[in-house]
Amino acid sequence: MRVILTLAAVAALACTPALAADPLRVGADAIRDQALTDPTAYAVVESLSTEVGPRLAGSEATARARDWGIAKLKALGFSNVHVEPFPIIAWARGPESATLTAPYPASLAILGLGGSVPTPPEGVEGEAVVFRAYADLLAAPPGSLAGKIAVVTQGMARTQEGSGYGAANPLRRSGASEAARRGAVAYLVRSLATGVSREPHTGALNYAPDAPKIPAAALSVIDAQQLERLAATGAPIRIRLQLASSTHPATSWTIVGDIPGTDHPEQVILVGGHLDSWDPGTGAIDDGAGIAIAVAAARLAGAAPHPPNRTLRVAMFGAEEMDFTNAAFTKDHVADVGDIVAIGESDEGADDVWSVQLPAGTAGLPPMRALAASLAPLKVFVSPEPARFGGSDIAGLAAAGAPLIDFRQDASRYFDWHHSSEDTLDKIDPAQLNQNVAAWATFLYIASHSDVSFRPTTTPPTAKP
Amino acid sequence: MRVILTLAAVAALACTPALAADPLRVGADAIRDQALTDPTAYAVVESLSTEVGPRLAGSEATARARDWGIAKLKALGFSNVHVEPFPIIAWARGPESATLTAPYPASLAILGLGGSVPTPPEGVEGEAVVFRAYADLLAAPPGSLAGKIAVVTQGMARTQEGSGYGAANPLRRSGASEAARRGAVAYLVRSLATGVSREPHTGALNYAPDAPKIPAAALSVIDAQQLERLAATGAPIRIRLQLASSTHPATSWTIVGDIPGTDHPEQVILVGGHLDSWDPGTGAIDDGAGIAIAVAAARLAGAAPHPPNRTLRVAMFGAEEMDFTNAAFTKDHVADVGDIVAIGESDEGADDVWSVQLPAGTAGLPPMRALAASLAPLKVFVSPEPARFGGSDIAGLAAAGAPLIDFRQDASRYFDWHHSSEDTLDKIDPAQLNQNVAAWATFLYIASHSDVSFRPTTTPPTAKP
Repeated sequence: MRVILTLAAVAALACTPALAADPLRVGADAIRDQALTDPTAYAVVESLSTEVGPRLAGSEATARARDWGIAKLKALGFSNVHVEPFPIIAWARGPESATLTAPYPASLAILGLGGSVPTPPEGVEGEAVVFRAYADLLAAPPGSLAGKIAVVTQGMARTQEGSGYGAANPLRRSGASEAARRGAVAYLVRSLATGVSREPHTGALNYAPDAPKIPAAALSVIDAQQLERLAATGAPIRIRLQLASSTHPATSWTIVGDIPGTDHPEQVILVGGHLDSWDPGTGAIDDGAGIAIAVAAARLAGAAPHPPNRTLRVAMFGAEEMDFTNAAFTKDHVADVGDIVAIGESDEGADDVWSVQLPAGTAGLPPMRALAASLAPLKVFVSPEPARFGGSDIAGLAAAGAPLIDFRQDASRYFDWHHSSEDTLDKIDPAQLNQNVAAWATFLYIASHSDVSFRPTTTPPTAKP
Repeated sequence: MRVILTLAAVAALACTPALAADPLRVGADAIRDQALTDPTAYAVVESLSTEVGPRLAGSEATARARDWGIAKLKALGFSNVHVEPFPIIAWARGPESATLTAPYPASLAILGLGGSVPTPPEGVEGEAVVFRAYADLLAAPPGSLAGKIAVVTQGMARTQEGSGYGAANPLRRSGASEAARRGAVAYLVRSLATGVSREPHTGALNYAPDAPKIPAAALSVIDAQQLERLAATGAPIRIRLQLASSTHPATSWTIVGDIPGTDHPEQVILVGGHLDSWDPGTGAIDDGAGIAIAVAAARLAGAAPHPPNRTLRVAMFGAEEMDFTNAAFTKDHVADVGDIVAIGESDEGADDVWSVQLPAGTAGLPPMRALAASLAPLKVFVSPEPARFGGSDIAGLAAAGAPLIDFRQDASRYFDWHHSSEDTLDKIDPAQLNQNVAAWATFLYIASHSDVSFRPTTTPPTAKP
């Protein structure tokens, strides 16, 4: 209701002749307003999360996801729909369990980390050493954890912009190798999560090349809190961990579809999300939402009364969670990077966009000033900070010179569910999902219906007064 | 803060000579205020849920819980601390899983219902028939579910007084037999829960004597919603269920401790909670909180400057969840029911009390009018309705004539976590827990320091004017 009233106020303002005179702005506003009630995005993410379900890269589900993606893009009117395969070494979860064996028997809620080596079939058991801060693990001397299971229970901050996740990332990515360097036989990390629940949150780890590879899993926040309390009683704590993970060669695919430009079809605005998901949930917010937002926004921008001058391209990336797409997609497309007008990925959930970051020095260009005006009623501002990280799948092409855009979303709730069995459709607020579609569609409309260039230009030196 | 201000206002009122003159009321108010900051209850439930953990009746944990209860009552100054054993046929959960096998493979989050028979080791697999309303299952003709798995996805209402649970109870208690009568080979029921989560909520079932016993489990609310959406696509749904439950003879124990009365030690006010819990959580709200409230309240009322005239007795009931204590405790104590002044159980979580129900016709007795005045600042009123259900463990003695009291709690949040792995210490708000202690302690003080009788008296017929 508030958005409608705000839009009405803006519409009233738009009736002044000066504003109404900019056809780019008028077209962008129309697309934005249409997006707010467009049913496409929710239907897409409902279909993907219900009909395909969980789709870990390399699993049987990804072939079904591929077929779903092709059919969905074709049904929504995209052209040149095709599949770009690439090989991966897939990781698969097997049966897993963690059991407290002392001071009393109880089960612990865990999920093995993506990439973790398995335990022996009988598991590993050892005394648990509970570190309330990751720094305390890093401060432990070599050998001090010999034969033990290292447990890090440090929490993660809830922030609008998601910075708590970045800060906590080393605990999941590097903790196993740090524990192994000190002699540990296994590593448990409190889930990188903002909520307090019994659901563990998985995610990938990276083994350091110079440390033994030890099995590693995420512990639910509640179990981590319980271990902290148990440790405070002084009772010796013992844990048995069993992980039956495995790896196998597999194929992954990026699915691509276009809305071709009329005047400059070779100039491409490329947006996407990733089609793979972690296995415990149904990949609704990570990243069914991103797929849905990209598809719905490109479709709306491409279906405007004036067709786009430039090509709108949607990519459904195949294997983001284990960071496989980036290298493959970069290798396959780095030669064409000069044709990319702008590149962006939606991969931060389904809640409201609050700012857009553009390539450095471009916020003042007239089309981007029109963008800022169009986005204002959505409570989205054009950030004074240039885009730095637009998404894992496009980082390589951005580094190679593709102009990067980044729509920052409200991540306050995202890490309550991210990478857990709670990443399911019920977490998506259709109104916030459509606010994303509106923001992206407005950008895509302006970028594809103008000749804006986001590339640095050599400006003649200006004489200082 | 609000409670403190309200108490200050009442304290100001209490300075008027008329109110200050009632020593019962003055003593009750002092106990109430002391209870609001007393650390005992939280320490008790933290200790039980951390140091003993889950404690399903008949499991190894219940012997540890027994020892914990004895030690805790003795440490808190109770006398006559003893154990009352009784035999049970315990039910034990084994490995469990439910898998969607069509339209695609995915795991479903389930918990076997307490008392469920096991499946064969290879499980049972069948086409799932999804009923959005339990009435639709009841309306299905005999034989219509032959070889199928019946799934009921009806929701449960969130209400302050917990009536949604009573209304939904037949779905869990009777659904398996109703499905079996129609030919089903297994039964899945949406968790009796108010929240939307991936955690299933277990609980006991009752097989009808005239129906085949089929395996039954609770499905998480999110999985139930997913099955509803899948069913709406028209795709055939198949499920495989594996439950390895078993039963075995075991011993359970009720732990009892007293604060003896001075003038009438034979007159007993009996309060308690149940020591057993479901196995997935740590039994913090169900019913560690009740144990903690009863123990802390009796201790405070018994430690008043004037010792109680009557005996305050605390019972930690041994096996409520499968409804074993009631018969045993009733049989062992029904002969002494005439000595019971009042009986009550705290078993509705850890959130605020909002009313107290007394035995019929006793709300107007002067000590109960003092009670009403003392409870008002806690936002607890004396209900015009008499107590009808005070708790499973005491229902038998109440039926045999023990005067029943019932402190009704705010159950708005309780069924988000009840009987699930989320029944853990973090759900307890210490301030609300202590409001319970204050309400109970006020009652216990008044009942043990007065000669109030809750038994019906024969009143002479009054001539109508």
